[in-house]
Formats: sequence, C-alpha cells, structure tokens
Amino acid sequence: MQNLVNRQVRLGARPADIPQAEHFVLAEAAVPDPGEGEIVVRNQFLSVEPAMRGWVSAVANYSAPVGLGEVMRAFASGEVIASRHRDFAPGDKVTGLFGWQDYAVVTPAAVTRKVTETDLPLSLSLGVLGLNGVTAYFGLTEVGEPRAGDTVVVSTAAGAVGSAVGQIAKIAGCRTVGIAGGAAKAAQCCDAFGFDAAIDYKAAGDLGAAIAAACPGGVDVYFDNTAGRVSDAVLPHLAMRARVVICGTASVSSWETWPTGPRVERHLLVKRARMQGLLVFDYQARYGEAIARLAAWVREGRLAYAEDILDGIEAAPDAIAGLYRGENRGKRLIRLHA
Amino acid sequence: MQNLVNRQVRLGARPADIPQAEHFVLAEAAVPDPGEGEIVVRNQFLSVEPAMRGWVSAVANYSAPVGLGEVMRAFASGEVIASRHRDFAPGDKVTGLFGWQDYAVVTPAAVTRKVTETDLPLSLSLGVLGLNGVTAYFGLTEVGEPRAGDTVVVSTAAGAVGSAVGQIAKIAGCRTVGIAGGAAKAAQCCDAFGFDAAIDYKAAGDLGAAIAAACPGGVDVYFDNTAGRVSDAVLPHLAMRARVVICGTASVSSWETWPTGPRVERHLLVKRARMQGLLVFDYQARYGEAIARLAAWVREGRLAYAEDILDGIEAAPDAIAGLYRGENRGKRLIRLHA
Repeated sequence: MQNLVNRQVRLGARPADIPQAEHFVLAEAAVPDPGEGEIVVRNQFLSVEPAMRGWVSAVANYSAPVGLGEVMRAFASGEVIASRHRDFAPGDKVTGLFGWQDYAVVTPAAVTRKVTETDLPLSLSLGVLGLNGVTAYFGLTEVGEPRAGDTVVVSTAAGAVGSAVGQIAKIAGCRTVGIAGGAAKAAQCCDAFGFDAAIDYKAAGDLGAAIAAACPGGVDVYFDNTAGRVSDAVLPHLAMRARVVICGTASVSSWETWPTGPRVERHLLVKRARMQGLLVFDYQARYGEAIARLAAWVREGRLAYAEDILDGIEAAPDAIAGLYRGENRGKRLIRLHA
Repeated sequence: MQNLVNRQVRLGARPADIPQAEHFVLAEAAVPDPGEGEIVVRNQFLSVEPAMRGWVSAVANYSAPVGLGEVMRAFASGEVIASRHRDFAPGDKVTGLFGWQDYAVVTPAAVTRKVTETDLPLSLSLGVLGLNGVTAYFGLTEVGEPRAGDTVVVSTAAGAVGSAVGQIAKIAGCRTVGIAGGAAKAAQCCDAFGFDAAIDYKAAGDLGAAIAAACPGGVDVYFDNTAGRVSDAVLPHLAMRARVVICGTASVSSWETWPTGPRVERHLLVKRARMQGLLVFDYQARYGEAIARLAAWVREGRLAYAEDILDGIEAAPDAIAGLYRGENRGKRLIRLHA
C-alpha cells in the first residue's frame, strides 16, 4: 500500500491518571501490504472513551497496557480497502480494534463485526450500535433485570451508555431517573432521552433528598457509571431486592491511592440487594442479538442518541481529557476523511 | 396457669449500640391461661444472637424495635404444656419467637416449626437445625452458589453460622478457608469443622497476604458475617465472577455514625463479581427442605456443631455483650429447668 500515508496517534508517555494531550504524539508511517489472512481497513470514525484511561494505565486491568510508542488502542469503524482473507472483501464496512490511525492492517481477530445495518450511519457502530449500546443492553437486562413498574436510576445519564440505559428501561416499562452533571445535561436527559425525571448533581444541594423525592418508592435498579458521591447518595434509597449494576467508576480519578466511601454492606443486607460488576466483553457471543434489537429501536425512533464528533485525527490526543472535563454532549468520535 | 411463675428478661433501657447487662431487668409475672387458639410453651432453651443488637435498636430495621418494658424478643425451644389449638398437643416440641422467659402464651404465628427430629438434642433447633444452620444453608447455596473446586472463605468461621457454612461448602466439594479471631477459634475451624485452612485475623500481621497465601486461585465465594477490616482484606483477592454473601456486619459496632471503608466498586467491576445481602426469613417457605438436609448431615456425622450453653435465665442479660466480646465457643444458648 505504498501510496498511502498512515497518520497515527501513539502513546508517548504514561499518564499517572487521566491521559492528557501531552501523553500522545502524532506520527506518520507507511501502510504495509496485507499478509496472507490480513485485511486493510481505512478508518472513518475513531472512538474516544473513558475506559481509555485504564488502557494506558500501568496498573493491571482487563488487558495489557498500551506500550509506549505504540498506536493508541481504540475502537474504530471503516471500510475494507484490501483483503487477503476470504471472509472480507473491499467495500465491507467493519468495526473493531483498529487504533487511532488512518489505516489498520489486521487479521479478523481485530474485527468486532461487519456492520450490516448500512441504512444507518456508520458512526453508530461505535456508539448506540457499538459497545456503548451493547453495554447498556446487557448491563440493564442481564444484570439489572428490570421489571415493568420498576424505578431505574442511571448515573452519567446523558452519556452514551446512560442515555441508552434510560431508553431501554422505558421500553421495558420502567420509570427512569437520570443523574447528570450540569443543567444542560440534566435537561438533555428528559428532552432528548425521555427520562421521567433528571437530577443535576452539581446543583442539588442535598443529593440524597433529591433522589428520595424523585424515587418515592425507592430505587429498584441503579445503573452505576460513576461510583463516588453520586452512588453514595443513591444507595441509602435502594428498594427491597434492588439491583446495582456496576458498569464504571468515572468519578474516581485514580485508584493508585484506593478511595474510601460509606460502607455498603448494611444497605445490601437490610434491602437484600445486590451489586454486580459488568464487563460487556463477557457477552461477546451475544452481541448480534443486542445489536439487532438496538438497531430496530433506532429505526422505530424509540432509541435516540447523541454524538459529539470532532474532525481530524489532530483532535484525538486531547479528546480523552475532554471527556473527563465533561465537555462532550454525546458519544465522542473523531471523524477522518471528512 | 395460676400455679406457675414466669421469670422474664425485659428491656429496661435502650442501648446506643451493643446491649449490655444493665439494659435488661429480670422480673416475674403470672402465666395467663391460654385463650382460644393459643398454646402455652415451657421454654427449655433460649437463644442468644448477634442480631439482637438490631432488635433493641431504635433505628429502622427488619422489624419494629423491642419496646421498653417488653420481654426481650428471642427465639426459644420448648415443650407445649397446654393447648387450645387443634394443631398442637401437650408434649409437642416447638421452636419459635417465645422470648427470654420461662413460659410463652402464644398463637401459632409465633411458632417457627414443630421439632420433629426428636432423636437429636432439642438445643439444635436453635443452632445448626435452627436459623443459624438455615442461614448457612440458603446463604451459601442460593446466594453463594458454590461449585465443586471453588475456594470458599468464611468470616467468623468458628461461629454458629460460619462453621455450618464451611462444612456445607466441603460437602459441595469446595476448598474452605476460615477466618476467626484468636488462635483457639482458628484451631477449632480446622479441628472441629474441617476447614482446609484457617486464619487468625488478630495474629495475622498482613491479613491480605495471609488470605492470598491461603487462596492461591483467588476467592470464589466469600461468606461475610463481619464487614469491616476482614472484608476489606478479602475483597482484593476475589476470583473472577466471585460471589460475596453479605450475611452480617458483626465487626461494626454502630451504624449511627456510618462507617467508611475502601470502595468496593472496582473489585466488583474488574472481577465481574457480585455482593448480595441475605436475610434468612425470605426463605421461610423452604425451611423444611433445609432442616431435613441439615439433620441428615448431622446424623451422618458430616455436620459438626459447637454449643456454648449458659445455665439459668440470670445469665441472659449479659449474654449478648459476651458474644460481642468474643467469649463464646459455639452457638450461645441459655438452658432453663436444668
């Protein structure tokens, strides 16, 4: 592929906690010809997500840390432009772990799936029809186990996962209460994503009282993307046999010094409640089921989404830090080849 | 029943946390004749248990607090000596909420069950064949979901619940590690209750390191009777998809000022683990199933138990505090009519 130049964002230094622009370097490389069994993907959208903080951390995590000098690990979606694998042909749309770069030369092991819902925007394969949507779907349905009439509380409710959780809960017949930071995001919860109520945790003086007022029958399902003080305010209001889905800990900036908080045991005991961690990769064999349902809901207008699209790979290095600054208003993506 | 004098232990003052001897008063009362539908039970054994701290607390709990001046709520076992209910006859052995007193005049609503395993000591109906054994049985099997080969860690492992948990886990094919306070209790775990390993948390300098050494493959099930620093040391060693059974919080002396501890969310997330509260009363409809299995294991010599029997109702007022001082070496009971 000698005529192509591959712009790449590589990890230049290992951050102590949230990766900032200065931890990355922009570089150019050649695109090698694909070997037997490989394909070449031209990326059209790169994903930016909170989990990237963990991927560049030296602390043991789900996967090995991204090495210094390596292309930043990232989900991306694009088009196959060359193939030496019989299952893929030029023109196929694919999504997978293709990295923060223009072109990825990979084996099918890096491909999460072919994107077949070509009537919908390709960018959705990284958001509501990607891991965010699938996380919301399995986290809520398999771990949260919502029942019609339940009250479902969601933290980071205007986010890519939280907004889908709220809407899937509504489809399941639940009452939904979103917690988000700032008046704009709280308004977005109700206006764009159909939450029955929303709480701006930055403005609520007594967050616990606000949750109690919004959930007079208690919280049956708490979909927790944050940990921290939002969770601490929700847990005393669990209903009997509540389910807490531990999906993320976005409010905790570092686990190097392990943070403390109010003990949870008594809440779980008195309410016979459960807290359970969710990792979406455990459901990989069932992604197709989730994506088919999510895509149908999008087409029916029952599942809205918001995107926060930055243009050009130059925007990537600062994009994770921006998430943690709370500046995005939807699933953050980088668009290439605009 | 005018010829009988009923000695009673009544709640005299409401304790701030652990009830001490001075919070109770010993009094005498007449035994009324049973009304239509009532029975008179002569108690032979009174139960003493950690949960009594909650029963006398003014803080909302599973049930209304014991009122000042009322007979202390307690499980007890005894014999029916008079009956005006067709389902009960003099000579029947029964166990139920009969209070800390010589005689109870009650309706069948207070009776947990008739004790039919009359080949075994009646005292067992308050321990290994009572709520302790049933708690261990349902907590481990229904919430802990042990699988053969799992490593099961139990706190207060020499106690009435913990010792049964360890033995039921062994019967299920698990490896068992008991955590107890003091060399004598740790030795009792292995010698009397067949734990594969035991840790004296008072002597272990680095409790986490001791747990890691005893559980090289991680902790699949943690049966938690304590909360507090024992739990804080166990949680970092959970295995993938571990189950934490929250059965009690014995290490926490008061929840009036809510205690803090290391946050649990990240453990649950990274290990896809769950923590779930257990209240045995939720399984009331299935007690018969549990007791039949537990009694069979006792008869087969596969389920050992330890009792700590105090003589005379005068021992009752100080008996709860004694539990929290850690002085008992088995299920604590008060024997009447010795």
